[in-house]
Amino acid sequence: MNESVLYEINLLKDFCNNVLLKVEVESENSEMITDSLICADLRGVKSHGIVRLPTYVERIEKGILDPKASMKFEKNAGAISLLNANNGFGQVAGYKAMKAAIDIARVYGIGMVGVKNSNHFGIASYYSMLALEEDMIGLVITHSSPAIAPYGTTKPLLGTNPLSIAVPADKQKPIVLDMSMSMVARGKIRYAALTGSKIPIGWGLDEDGNPTEDPNEALKGSLVPIGGVKGSALSLIIDILCGILTDSCLTGEVKTVTDMSGPARTGHMFCAINISSFIEADKFKQNVDSVISKIKAFPAVSDNIYMAGEIEYNLAKKRIAEGLPVEQDVINTLNALAQRYGVSKL
Amino acid sequence: MNESVLYEINLLKDFCNNVLLKVEVESENSEMITDSLICADLRGVKSHGIVRLPTYVERIEKGILDPKASMKFEKNAGAISLLNANNGFGQVAGYKAMKAAIDIARVYGIGMVGVKNSNHFGIASYYSMLALEEDMIGLVITHSSPAIAPYGTTKPLLGTNPLSIAVPADKQKPIVLDMSMSMVARGKIRYAALTGSKIPIGWGLDEDGNPTEDPNEALKGSLVPIGGVKGSALSLIIDILCGILTDSCLTGEVKTVTDMSGPARTGHMFCAINISSFIEADKFKQNVDSVISKIKAFPAVSDNIYMAGEIEYNLAKKRIAEGLPVEQDVINTLNALAQRYGVSKL
Repeated sequence: MNESVLYEINLLKDFCNNVLLKVEVESENSEMITDSLICADLRGVKSHGIVRLPTYVERIEKGILDPKASMKFEKNAGAISLLNANNGFGQVAGYKAMKAAIDIARVYGIGMVGVKNSNHFGIASYYSMLALEEDMIGLVITHSSPAIAPYGTTKPLLGTNPLSIAVPADKQKPIVLDMSMSMVARGKIRYAALTGSKIPIGWGLDEDGNPTEDPNEALKGSLVPIGGVKGSALSLIIDILCGILTDSCLTGEVKTVTDMSGPARTGHMFCAINISSFIEADKFKQNVDSVISKIKAFPAVSDNIYMAGEIEYNLAKKRIAEGLPVEQDVINTLNALAQRYGVSKL
Repeated sequence: MNESVLYEINLLKDFCNNVLLKVEVESENSEMITDSLICADLRGVKSHGIVRLPTYVERIEKGILDPKASMKFEKNAGAISLLNANNGFGQVAGYKAMKAAIDIARVYGIGMVGVKNSNHFGIASYYSMLALEEDMIGLVITHSSPAIAPYGTTKPLLGTNPLSIAVPADKQKPIVLDMSMSMVARGKIRYAALTGSKIPIGWGLDEDGNPTEDPNEALKGSLVPIGGVKGSALSLIIDILCGILTDSCLTGEVKTVTDMSGPARTGHMFCAINISSFIEADKFKQNVDSVISKIKAFPAVSDNIYMAGEIEYNLAKKRIAEGLPVEQDVINTLNALAQRYGVSKL
């Protein structure tokens, strides 16, 4: 049985914070990390939520993630900045970098901040959404370990390399896109393999680059990029911007969060666009509202029309009110961690 | 019979220029327009090449495109600028805006220039590639008339909304992505309808939003966006950046180049990123070379592995050397235009 238990958000936050403080994360930083993890869980992106906590702790224990990293802005050239995360938490680097991009955009209309030598930063939309309250558009990209084969080849090199863009609205909910460059996450294929079910054609390719319905063949092969050659090229360019432009590492070298063989060398890129540099912010947001209303009045394929990020927004609202469900096996893992570090169990 | 005739590039350029001068385009501007049209033909993007000349002329004749528009930069806020094209040629606005973005990026590290009240600007990569010779990364988006249904609906509202990103390399060819947000261009479906052939599932949807193999049903319905919900959301955000942020028009209002019912009200967005603000440009380009070499050495699905823009680069090189093939029916149309305006025929 793997039933879920509902937890109050603050209880989960305290738990995360307590564990992070025990592994020498400074309290200010532990709050950023906790906030990002809980944000993922609230929005239903479980894979980037508190379930990741033991993995981060393991990286610290193995000495391949520095919980006390001193992060420095190494380059500042007008509207551009580069933060060296010095192998610290991706969530801390991401928060600082996005805030810096927003500060720059307030002055220059746009701010672009790269991060080098970072780690897995969790959910991309956590950072893009920071721009919303400033009446800015937030854009975030990061790269990840090989999962997609460059178009025309059979071997994975490119990551799923998520892109998140957050656009504020007025009375409507903001539009928050958070997408990877693969048709589906590898987790969905792994789940099909575990449950012995087939996957639809268009999710994965086998080792020879052929479409396959067998999840095990797809796991040995690669993920299908969106739009084929288009998604493959987009993924490569995101890697170039996050890995090469930041001087973090070359395409294919970034390590996934569970790869304990060394520092992850992850790069990210954060942009904030100050709407009022182009158009009065209220007018912009009202126009976005108009477009959302127009789309919502269109003939629907099924029962409801959702904008990007709307399902996640609704889920977060519900979970903030009612509590966050955590599966029993996750609770067990987290409690084992708590016991090792002498903090209160969930 | 619709055979092609090979023309020298300069001869075609002179022809375009001569026609444009006759419809009161200033010579400096006619060269920008001509250059963009020929660039499209050289790269094999026939639909954005000289075949479009009669359509542009028709817009001028109908008074819905101003060949002598006075374009003004209305906003300048640090790294941001907004050009009002005042219903002039998209190619002229695009060239001026991308050059402005490059100039801004030289000072601020990044430049972002919006264009409002513009027209069809031809091939997006023409502008993104202008950044390459400056050791910058170029990014260009524009919006277009309804072709894609917002996810969950059956009615087209979103354009195919192309995105082009150009990344310089050192000894390798630059990476030049130029993609729309639909799986295929509507032209491919139109061609299938003309030739009475089926289209593969995954290209088009019928009026009820169902996948169809019938090109005529797809033409009445909508185009399939890349990655389904992902491409739909990306297309909407590109429209918001090009249409709403520039205050050009609302989503769905922009007119296609052949819609003669009024000004097109097209918006575009141009970004230049100065590589040396982040990393020494030579190091960046050498690292891009390394990644390209790595990919090229991968096991290939078929005979050759091409990077984004490479096939177009090779084709342009060949056509510059050997001449550009123009189909007889296009020649006839262009010659009819030449006759009306008293310029030398092709």
